[in-house]
Amino acid sequence: MDRNLLVGQSGGPTAAINSSLAGVVRAAMAHPDIGRIYGACNGMEGFLQGRVVDLTAVLREAEDLERLRATPAMALGSCRYKLPAPPAPVYERIRRLFHAFGIGYFLYIGGNDSMDTVQKLSAYFASVGEDVRCVGVPKTIDNDLPCLDHSPGFGSAARFIATAVTEIACDSAVYHVPSVTIVEIMGRNAGWLTASSVLARRACGGAPQLIYLPEVPFDPEKFLGTLETMSRTQEHLVVAVSEGLRLEDGRYLAENPHAAADSFGHSALAGAGKYLEGLVRDRFGCKVRAVELNVLQRAAAHLASAADLDEAGRLGECAVQAAGAGRTGVMTTLRRLSDHPYLVDYSWAPLEQVANRERKVPTEWIAPSGCDVTRAMVDYLCPLVRGEVERFQSGGLPVPFIIPRDYVKAPGTEK
Amino acid sequence: MDRNLLVGQSGGPTAAINSSLAGVVRAAMAHPDIGRIYGACNGMEGFLQGRVVDLTAVLREAEDLERLRATPAMALGSCRYKLPAPPAPVYERIRRLFHAFGIGYFLYIGGNDSMDTVQKLSAYFASVGEDVRCVGVPKTIDNDLPCLDHSPGFGSAARFIATAVTEIACDSAVYHVPSVTIVEIMGRNAGWLTASSVLARRACGGAPQLIYLPEVPFDPEKFLGTLETMSRTQEHLVVAVSEGLRLEDGRYLAENPHAAADSFGHSALAGAGKYLEGLVRDRFGCKVRAVELNVLQRAAAHLASAADLDEAGRLGECAVQAAGAGRTGVMTTLRRLSDHPYLVDYSWAPLEQVANRERKVPTEWIAPSGCDVTRAMVDYLCPLVRGEVERFQSGGLPVPFIIPRDYVKAPGTEK
Repeated sequence: MDRNLLVGQSGGPTAAINSSLAGVVRAAMAHPDIGRIYGACNGMEGFLQGRVVDLTAVLREAEDLERLRATPAMALGSCRYKLPAPPAPVYERIRRLFHAFGIGYFLYIGGNDSMDTVQKLSAYFASVGEDVRCVGVPKTIDNDLPCLDHSPGFGSAARFIATAVTEIACDSAVYHVPSVTIVEIMGRNAGWLTASSVLARRACGGAPQLIYLPEVPFDPEKFLGTLETMSRTQEHLVVAVSEGLRLEDGRYLAENPHAAADSFGHSALAGAGKYLEGLVRDRFGCKVRAVELNVLQRAAAHLASAADLDEAGRLGECAVQAAGAGRTGVMTTLRRLSDHPYLVDYSWAPLEQVANRERKVPTEWIAPSGCDVTRAMVDYLCPLVRGEVERFQSGGLPVPFIIPRDYVKAPGTEK
Repeated sequence: MDRNLLVGQSGGPTAAINSSLAGVVRAAMAHPDIGRIYGACNGMEGFLQGRVVDLTAVLREAEDLERLRATPAMALGSCRYKLPAPPAPVYERIRRLFHAFGIGYFLYIGGNDSMDTVQKLSAYFASVGEDVRCVGVPKTIDNDLPCLDHSPGFGSAARFIATAVTEIACDSAVYHVPSVTIVEIMGRNAGWLTASSVLARRACGGAPQLIYLPEVPFDPEKFLGTLETMSRTQEHLVVAVSEGLRLEDGRYLAENPHAAADSFGHSALAGAGKYLEGLVRDRFGCKVRAVELNVLQRAAAHLASAADLDEAGRLGECAVQAAGAGRTGVMTTLRRLSDHPYLVDYSWAPLEQVANRERKVPTEWIAPSGCDVTRAMVDYLCPLVRGEVERFQSGGLPVPFIIPRDYVKAPGTEK
C-alpha cells in the first residue's frame, strides 16, 4: 500500500524555501511508492494543532509549482517549535497522528534548529521500530549549515545584497562632499552574507571599501583609523558590517534592549550600523548614514538567483529520493565539484553531523587586515548569484502563490 | 553658428533621472542647432568649480545611452546648491562661463529646489538681454511637483515600494502568532509614496491593512484603537506609514536629533516606524517590527518601471525641443489623457507655476477613515508601475554606467 508524505517548513524565511517545497512535491508526485502529499502548516507545531493541507489537491497544475517556486517566504508557514528531548508525551502524539494520516515519509525544510527536529523524530521512530523516514532539506540565508558547499537561500540573499549595495553606492556618491555609508547586513555569527557585499565592488567606485565580518573581533579605534586613512584618497566610503559584530571581549557592538531572546535562546540584535554611524559622526563630523538592508535580504524573491532556486528545488527532489530509498535521519547535501564550469553534485549526510553546528567563514578567506575578504571568497560567491528567475507578475507587481488554508482531517477521522 | 548645451542634475537621486539625461543627450545629438553637449558634474555648484565633462565625447554608442538610462542615482552627480536672489556676483560668473563654453541652452534635471535655479537663471539672462534658454526637466520620487500628472522617478519608487511591501507581507505572515509590521516609507510632506503601498494589497492577505499619509494629522490613540479592532479578525497586520507623520499640533511623530537641517532648511526626519513600533509593543505586548524601506526606494533601478523611464526620457527630449524652439523659464510637463488605455501627452509650464510649490495627495483620494486611500488612488497608480526595463548585468549583478570625470576646460582657455 502507498504511504503518504508529510512536508513542512520551519525556521526563518528565505527566497528559496518554496522552491524546495516545489521540488519535494514534484518528486513525490512522480514517486511510485508515495500516495498523498500532506503539508504541515506552521511546521511541526501546526501539525500538532491539526493544520494540515492536502498538497496533492492544491498543487494540481504544473504552473502552480512554477509559481510556488518563485514565491518568497514560506507558503506553508513556519514555526519556531523545538521538540523536547525524548522521552516526552509529544512523540507518542506525533506517532498517532502519523498513523492517522498514513505518513511514511516526513520531510522538513529548515535550518540548524529544524534539523534537530528531524533527527529526534528519526531516532524516535527507529526506537519504536517503525519505518517512518525522516529527511531534512537544508535552507538558511546565513549559509552556516555544515556538510554543504552553501545553503539554499544564501545565493538569492547574496544577489540581493550585492545589488542593493551597488545601488546604495551609486546613491551615496552623488554629492561632492565626503561621506561614509554604513550598510548593516544580516548574519548573527557567520559573515557569509556580509561577505557577499564584495560582489558589488567592481560596479561603483570600489564600494564597499571595507567589509567587517563577525568572525573577527571588532576594534572601534582601529576602524576609525582605517576610515580616516582611506578618506584621504576616497571621497565616498561604503562600509559593509555584519549585524553580529562583537568587541574583543565578546559583547555585541549593539544590542536591542526591547527585543527578547527567541525561543532558541538567540538574543536579538539590532543597530550595529546605527551604532557605528554615531561613532563616525562623533569622531569626524562628516556626512554619515547607516542603512539596514533588513528583511528584504531574505524576502526579495524578485532578485532570487536562478542557480539558488534550481539547487533548492533539486535538494527537495533528492530528499524524496533518499526517503524513497530507505534513508532516514539524513539531510540532503550539495557539494561543489568545480568553479569553472560551476558544477555541483547532490548527496546526503547523517543529521548528527549537521544539527546544532555552525559553519563560519574560514580564516583564510578573510583578508589579514580583518576588514576585507580574499579572492577565494569572490570565486566562491560568483556562481551562486547567477541567473534570472521567471517572475510571476501582474501589472508590474509580484503575484505570490498562496496555499489555501483548507485543513483536512486524517482519513480515518473524516467519516 | 551652433550653440552648445549644458545639462546638469540636482537634488536627490531617483531611478529615472539618468533616463532623463539620456533623453536630453539623445535629442540634443539629433538637433540641428545644437553643437556640443556639456555635462555639469555636481550641478551648478560643480559647474562653477570647473567640473564639466564633454558628453558628446563620452556617450558615443547607442548602447551607452541605454545603459545610462538603466543606471540608478545621478551619473553627473548632484548638488544642494541654492542660487542667491539676484543681483549677486555669481550670476556674472555664470554668464562668463557660459560665454566661454558657448552655452546657448541650459537644461537642469531636478525637483522643486532645482527649478528655482532654472527660473533665476532664465530671468537673469533675459534681464541682460542674452538668448540663453533655460529649461527644467522634472524629477522627484516624492511626486509633489505641480503641473504634472506625476513626476518621473515616482513610478519606479512606487513599484519598488509595492514589491517590497508584498514581500515583507509574505515574510511577516509565516508564524502563527499575532504580529504587527510597520513599514516606514519616504515622503516628508506628501503621501504619494506611502499611498503606493496599496498596490501590494491584492497579493498577500490584504496587506498593508492600514495606510497613514502625512496629509492627515496622526492620532496615536485612534491608531492603537484601530489596530486593536483589526487584530481581532486578522492575525498579521502590516501598516504603511509615512516618515513625515505629524501629530495634530504639527510636530513630527519622530525627529532625528543627530541630523541637521539640510541646506534648504528641511529638517531631517527619522524614526516614525521605530516610534510606532515602541508604541504598539508597549500597549499590546505583541510581536511588532518596524521596517524602514530606506534609500532603495529611490535607488532600486533593478525594479524601475518601464513606464517611468520612458516618460522620464521623453521629458528630457521635450526639454531640448522646447529650448530649441525658443522657450526659456519653463519646465517640461506631462498630462494624463486617459487611464484605459493609459495615455499621456507632453507640454511645458512656466516655472513660476512650479518652483517652491508642493502638490499633496488630494483629500478625496484619502479614505474618510484617514487610514487608507480610495479606488481613485489605485487607478491613478496602476499605470505608473508597469513594464520591465532591460537590465544591464554581468553574472547576475547590475553594471551601472559611470561617466568618467575627464573634466574639460572651456574651448577658449584650452590653448
